[in-house]
Amino acid sequence: MSNVAVDGDRLWQSLMTTAEIGGTPKGGIKRLTLTDEDRRVRDWFAAACTDAGCVVSVDSLGNMFARRPGRDNSLPPICIGSHLDTQPTGGKFDGVLGVLAGLEVLRSLDDASYETTAPIEIVNWTNEEGARFSPAMLASGVFAGVFDADYALSRVDQDGVEFGDALDRIGYRGGVPAGNHPIAAMFELHIEQGPILESEEAAIGVVSGVQGMRWYELTIAGRDSHAGSTPMIARQDALLAAAKVIQHVRSIGLAHSPHARSTVGRIEVRPNSPNVIPGEVFLTIDLRHPDAAVLERMEAELEQGLQRDIESGGHACVLKRIWNSPPVEFDKSLRDHIRVAADRLELKWLDIVSGAGHDAAYIARVAPTAMVFVPCRDGISHNEEEYTTQEQCTAGAAVLLESVLAFDGLLQSRLEAV
Amino acid sequence: MSNVAVDGDRLWQSLMTTAEIGGTPKGGIKRLTLTDEDRRVRDWFAAACTDAGCVVSVDSLGNMFARRPGRDNSLPPICIGSHLDTQPTGGKFDGVLGVLAGLEVLRSLDDASYETTAPIEIVNWTNEEGARFSPAMLASGVFAGVFDADYALSRVDQDGVEFGDALDRIGYRGGVPAGNHPIAAMFELHIEQGPILESEEAAIGVVSGVQGMRWYELTIAGRDSHAGSTPMIARQDALLAAAKVIQHVRSIGLAHSPHARSTVGRIEVRPNSPNVIPGEVFLTIDLRHPDAAVLERMEAELEQGLQRDIESGGHACVLKRIWNSPPVEFDKSLRDHIRVAADRLELKWLDIVSGAGHDAAYIARVAPTAMVFVPCRDGISHNEEEYTTQEQCTAGAAVLLESVLAFDGLLQSRLEAV
Repeated sequence: MSNVAVDGDRLWQSLMTTAEIGGTPKGGIKRLTLTDEDRRVRDWFAAACTDAGCVVSVDSLGNMFARRPGRDNSLPPICIGSHLDTQPTGGKFDGVLGVLAGLEVLRSLDDASYETTAPIEIVNWTNEEGARFSPAMLASGVFAGVFDADYALSRVDQDGVEFGDALDRIGYRGGVPAGNHPIAAMFELHIEQGPILESEEAAIGVVSGVQGMRWYELTIAGRDSHAGSTPMIARQDALLAAAKVIQHVRSIGLAHSPHARSTVGRIEVRPNSPNVIPGEVFLTIDLRHPDAAVLERMEAELEQGLQRDIESGGHACVLKRIWNSPPVEFDKSLRDHIRVAADRLELKWLDIVSGAGHDAAYIARVAPTAMVFVPCRDGISHNEEEYTTQEQCTAGAAVLLESVLAFDGLLQSRLEAV
Repeated sequence: MSNVAVDGDRLWQSLMTTAEIGGTPKGGIKRLTLTDEDRRVRDWFAAACTDAGCVVSVDSLGNMFARRPGRDNSLPPICIGSHLDTQPTGGKFDGVLGVLAGLEVLRSLDDASYETTAPIEIVNWTNEEGARFSPAMLASGVFAGVFDADYALSRVDQDGVEFGDALDRIGYRGGVPAGNHPIAAMFELHIEQGPILESEEAAIGVVSGVQGMRWYELTIAGRDSHAGSTPMIARQDALLAAAKVIQHVRSIGLAHSPHARSTVGRIEVRPNSPNVIPGEVFLTIDLRHPDAAVLERMEAELEQGLQRDIESGGHACVLKRIWNSPPVEFDKSLRDHIRVAADRLELKWLDIVSGAGHDAAYIARVAPTAMVFVPCRDGISHNEEEYTTQEQCTAGAAVLLESVLAFDGLLQSRLEAV
């Protein structure tokens, strides 16, 4: 073990200070990507990294990289990071912990005057949540070559604002094109967002991979007409059709339990007036499974259900798959570093599959990547009640530090062997 | 029959001219109450009435009265009117026809230099639709003593804007308190908004009354959590619960066919993000029936369904009845005038119950009131495709004119008899 140690109080202080930026009365955070709140937390993060002696650069998608030099700056950096944006009623830990634990690693290295072999970069990826601009993990996706930059920049929010314009407005469109940035390894610390670690009383999850996910947009057409004068049998009620879809989507997830997930999270009704039969409904569908073949079957069941419930009932509908993220397996060697670090720190660990998407899932396409999970209370996340204790956060940051140093130590050995 | 005749071309011209105020690309109108579009159509209407020699007054709720003097101005006026506001995707005839046909009656009387015994007033009632400020028929309701003025003025729209502030903003808060304004009789011409007159090939509906209506707001509480990491069996999905409510509401209307109506027209989901399980749903429920006892049973069935589907499934829900409009019967004598007028004009008429609410339903509480219906194509209303032919509009206006003059003639006979 290194003689470097993270400072749990300092990490907690960073979490609580930044939680005030977009903080909600119920103790959560509302910090949608590229809003004024996002700008403020970015400014805070940039200042903290600059104070720690880093150089902060921003790419064309607003991804931020705070670089701490190593002994050999010709080496690609070891990256640590996650995201600072949140859901509309998000918690204090989702994403933020991964970035601020990275900052804590930096500060710990400074405290110990520890010089790494490779440079270290702390990363804040733009728009991980996908709550304002769909799809999620948009900017790490561009970085990894999954999406075109132009596609990302032209995504619009519910008010019709383009991603690129929102980026300009907060002053975080950098000059360097996103991507083409070699990375030696990427580590992401994150809360589990599920109940498994807590129920197994494990402090650390060694994430084996991320389940496959597909997002869809569905538009159902009915006919808007008067709620008082249109007989029940003469109606084409798009919301009634949507109610059947919502129940069918639920049944798909149940049929492939326990690993499948299926969710209708967003719905918009037109004209959305109490005395008008809804003429059009837009909704989103999120399907997930760790096995690509099962996910394929779930999609087929969705299509069959629409055919059966909606089209055969006389409604027109259009289903569009807007995102397809195949299952991901993380780097075996980095996972070993995490296990060894947890053992050395005498923390109980478990191998675990991530049910949620993460920036690391895209970065795994272009660099060796791994994730560390810590528990969250009752498995609740994307919720203002989301909570992880200081002790649990500290344990995660400590494992992150040890894993990074172990990987860096290997780089050093290889250099010496040359 | 009188020697006065409405000018169908002129009426159609008024309809098409005002349809451009808030006109939509699909041929409808979006003219929500107390918006800039509403202000513009009000200005147009006031100018047209002033040009026709009327004095226009505005009461404290924005209701407009354009007064054409009669021979005896100590008599309470005969009112003709409806509303100029529309649904978010409304048509060109709902409401507007009743106001502009009133204007056409005025102009026809002027053309013939016809002096009525009582003064005539053309009325534009504020916020009939209830699409921006709930409930519907708000200002005619205050006029008739159903609601307090303060209640109406403090209603808020979806953006938190108060009715009273919106009224001030467009400059249509008058000094005279709404109500305390004696009326000899009130006539409202309106499109049927249903399919019956068209299918029976009748030109005129003699409206016997308006069915009873109740509006409810329902809030369902779930728990917002992550769509990827929350197992299907651990979810509290408020939208899934709402889907059951939507289907149950539909089944209530079907069970009391053919006269019952039941509709979920508006729904709001929180946080409404694709990868968050919905934690809260707000929705509106509209129940209608011409028989008060059946309406009472429908409400009981709604409550039982919530108990069975929602509360027993572990969700909390709050049902609030925000509006209760009992069934209304219109004045028998005025209905006779309408039948006689239609017969004289050789127009086929039918007695009909109104499925929709109308300002006349409230005014019936304080004055003899009746309604004339004309057909609309395919029974479609609250829709940009809503359509009534020029011939049908003209027929309705002609019946309105003859009915008003017949009623006015009776007043004259009574005065002479004194």
